[in-house]
Amino acid sequence: MSNTVMIIGGNGAGLSAASQVKKLQPAWDVIVYEKGPHISYAGCGMPYFIEGIIPEFADLFELTPETVVKDRKIDLRLWHEVLAVSPEQKELRIRTPAGVETVRFDTLLLATGAIPMMEGMRLGPPAKPRRVFTLKSIEDMLEISRFLEEHKPRRCAVIGGGYIAAEMLEAFHVRGLETHLVHRRDQLANTFEPEISAIILQRMTKEGIVLNLQRAVEELTEEGDKVVVRTDSGDLYYDFVLIATGVQPSTAFLRENGIELGIKGAVVVNKYLQTNYPHIYAAGDCAQTTSIVTGRPVYVPLAPKANKEGYIAGTNIAGGREEFPGTVETALTKFADMGIARTGLTLDGALQHGFNAAKYTFSARSRARYYPGSGELYCVIVVNKDDGRFLGAQMTGPLDSMKRIDVYAVMIQQGVTVDEAFKLDLAYSPPFSPLYDPVILAARLGRNYVNS
Amino acid sequence: MSNTVMIIGGNGAGLSAASQVKKLQPAWDVIVYEKGPHISYAGCGMPYFIEGIIPEFADLFELTPETVVKDRKIDLRLWHEVLAVSPEQKELRIRTPAGVETVRFDTLLLATGAIPMMEGMRLGPPAKPRRVFTLKSIEDMLEISRFLEEHKPRRCAVIGGGYIAAEMLEAFHVRGLETHLVHRRDQLANTFEPEISAIILQRMTKEGIVLNLQRAVEELTEEGDKVVVRTDSGDLYYDFVLIATGVQPSTAFLRENGIELGIKGAVVVNKYLQTNYPHIYAAGDCAQTTSIVTGRPVYVPLAPKANKEGYIAGTNIAGGREEFPGTVETALTKFADMGIARTGLTLDGALQHGFNAAKYTFSARSRARYYPGSGELYCVIVVNKDDGRFLGAQMTGPLDSMKRIDVYAVMIQQGVTVDEAFKLDLAYSPPFSPLYDPVILAARLGRNYVNS
Repeated sequence: MSNTVMIIGGNGAGLSAASQVKKLQPAWDVIVYEKGPHISYAGCGMPYFIEGIIPEFADLFELTPETVVKDRKIDLRLWHEVLAVSPEQKELRIRTPAGVETVRFDTLLLATGAIPMMEGMRLGPPAKPRRVFTLKSIEDMLEISRFLEEHKPRRCAVIGGGYIAAEMLEAFHVRGLETHLVHRRDQLANTFEPEISAIILQRMTKEGIVLNLQRAVEELTEEGDKVVVRTDSGDLYYDFVLIATGVQPSTAFLRENGIELGIKGAVVVNKYLQTNYPHIYAAGDCAQTTSIVTGRPVYVPLAPKANKEGYIAGTNIAGGREEFPGTVETALTKFADMGIARTGLTLDGALQHGFNAAKYTFSARSRARYYPGSGELYCVIVVNKDDGRFLGAQMTGPLDSMKRIDVYAVMIQQGVTVDEAFKLDLAYSPPFSPLYDPVILAARLGRNYVNS
Repeated sequence: MSNTVMIIGGNGAGLSAASQVKKLQPAWDVIVYEKGPHISYAGCGMPYFIEGIIPEFADLFELTPETVVKDRKIDLRLWHEVLAVSPEQKELRIRTPAGVETVRFDTLLLATGAIPMMEGMRLGPPAKPRRVFTLKSIEDMLEISRFLEEHKPRRCAVIGGGYIAAEMLEAFHVRGLETHLVHRRDQLANTFEPEISAIILQRMTKEGIVLNLQRAVEELTEEGDKVVVRTDSGDLYYDFVLIATGVQPSTAFLRENGIELGIKGAVVVNKYLQTNYPHIYAAGDCAQTTSIVTGRPVYVPLAPKANKEGYIAGTNIAGGREEFPGTVETALTKFADMGIARTGLTLDGALQHGFNAAKYTFSARSRARYYPGSGELYCVIVVNKDDGRFLGAQMTGPLDSMKRIDVYAVMIQQGVTVDEAFKLDLAYSPPFSPLYDPVILAARLGRNYVNS
């Protein structure tokens, strides 16, 4: 059996899949179409490049085109943009540097990623903004970087309340800019519990970030060397603005071709990452997935999911039958010396999904009380009052404490109850943990909220 | 129903139990006998006090006698040593400051902890060594501390190859002493995989620790201001010596009274922490427990187990019916800037228990490759080839990576397979983790070792 596998998108999901197909089926043709010049870049590292702590932007590339082509024997086509997919005919229309052409596939993987979302803001004039940025691609990153070098701006705003917003506030602040947060809510994005949000906003204020909350941005225009940010409560002026109001699946080219789209236009897939056409798969930021906690569809455009889905889609395209179970929506970032971690549901999310949920908060030491460098870790826990299972956990505190969120991620994914968690044999040593690790403490406290 | 609960031992297990009984049954009499003057001290912090990074030894106490007596209404008797237990008669013989007396209990908890083990070494002359130390009690710690201040020794040895040995090598080295390790094996204790041991020994050498391995100590005597360490391959001379060759349950006073003893003389208990006499419980370092991995008895004298067992024994004494499932033998320590973490079985242990086990090793980045401060984490993983479950994991590397061992501890306790683990939704962000977290990488690699 031979096969022509075509993959649209040359980042984490696409190249993981391509590599896996070639590993399992070396004789098959695997063609990857990438619309731009860059492949396989660490998007999550871009804020730190702009911050100035990663010397070379080349450091952000995981694989070079040479490795992909020569070592992995993948047929990589840069500057190839797929314009349309015909699922029944198994055809792609592609804009290549030489013109538009039509090609035929046996199996297709959609791995087109995501694009910035504008949340109803009007942009311009000018038609092509010079001082308004987003940060999704390497080109975006280099553009911001060049702007900072060339224009030496002094005052900027980040619009948004999520991870990228927090990271870019840090980056611009470290670069010495007067940095403002402009956000429509009175707290950070609703993936954060209000208690966690409050602590982080307080830390941002202490660091000198100016907070402009409850300001819905309506329009961004440029006047001379200023950006005018028109909000529902007045205008704000900056040397430049970064829009970080989230992303949406890059699936516009799929509309009305029969491939089923879900949340925000993300491609709907089954556990094997197949679309409603079994010979067409989707993986990564363009694909919808399932919440393991609720069993319902979610859109989670994060890199670990993308890479694993690519690997699993590749396995299945090559003849395997591996399942991707979905996500518990674990995420992690930092602002300055404070980590911000989450997994599972917020209380609001849990209640909306019909769980009989309770939330409790506590603070714990990150190390033994008496050990130098012990910090305070703030935790917000959501439990199912009926069965004692953890539904969600969020933390903020010292950076070296943050990977504790993984323990909650495993527990939520495995359905561990607070009673079971209290008896987990977690590691203790004064430089690393208090005697009752914050996770064990969470379990012990949680027992008070569960109906027995 | 009234009840007189007597508890032998005023450290973690004993006081956790006493507090829990008084919380659930405020009307009951709860008497805690402690043979010395100190209660509730953080034994695991003692090496760091000697190292000089904890200013006050008072910082090591979790609870003061005043809190125990006044706030928790526990009848605390310091300087009361229990000499014998009569299980049938429900009586204790006690040496008090006023003389020997006999008292009667309704329910008893044995929480006498552990004492240093000498591993067949002869001690003395002199009968009471002045330059040979162990480190188990606050008195031991203060004695070492005073010795260092008064005698300004320059050269010392730590005998042993476990956690306390590693911690005390660090402590003495940081204090500026020429510090030797003397150990009977050619590697650290057999709880560590040889690969982990080799890396740590190399790091110790680099730091300037002198390694005297494969030296079984036969006798320790003192000549003038030197300790003579007689080994099977010649004599070694030091200004002082610390023996850190492990501990054994402090249960000598229980021999031949009918209470069943197991490994090393540890008290045998059921899941409710009852001895073979249902009205007598045991918890902490004097009690045997169960390996959750093998289902077999193990002796694990570590503080989190002691405190949780105390809490659960207290709950059950007060009328509850809570189980303690046992341990996966998680442990954590550090030497200098390297953490050392373990959980579950070693390969040797797994094979001895009849598992069809495989071991693999790999190194991973602790953070994204390009992010500043990314270090190398060495991992040794043991999996069950038949069902793909993790059986053991050990790591050494940057301190801020070490709590990843908790994820393995949960996975082993919950029976998670490498396939399931590969799909865990663990947290990623460049300052905290590479894209494929070392745990996910372990899972992916582990799939190659499992029979499918």
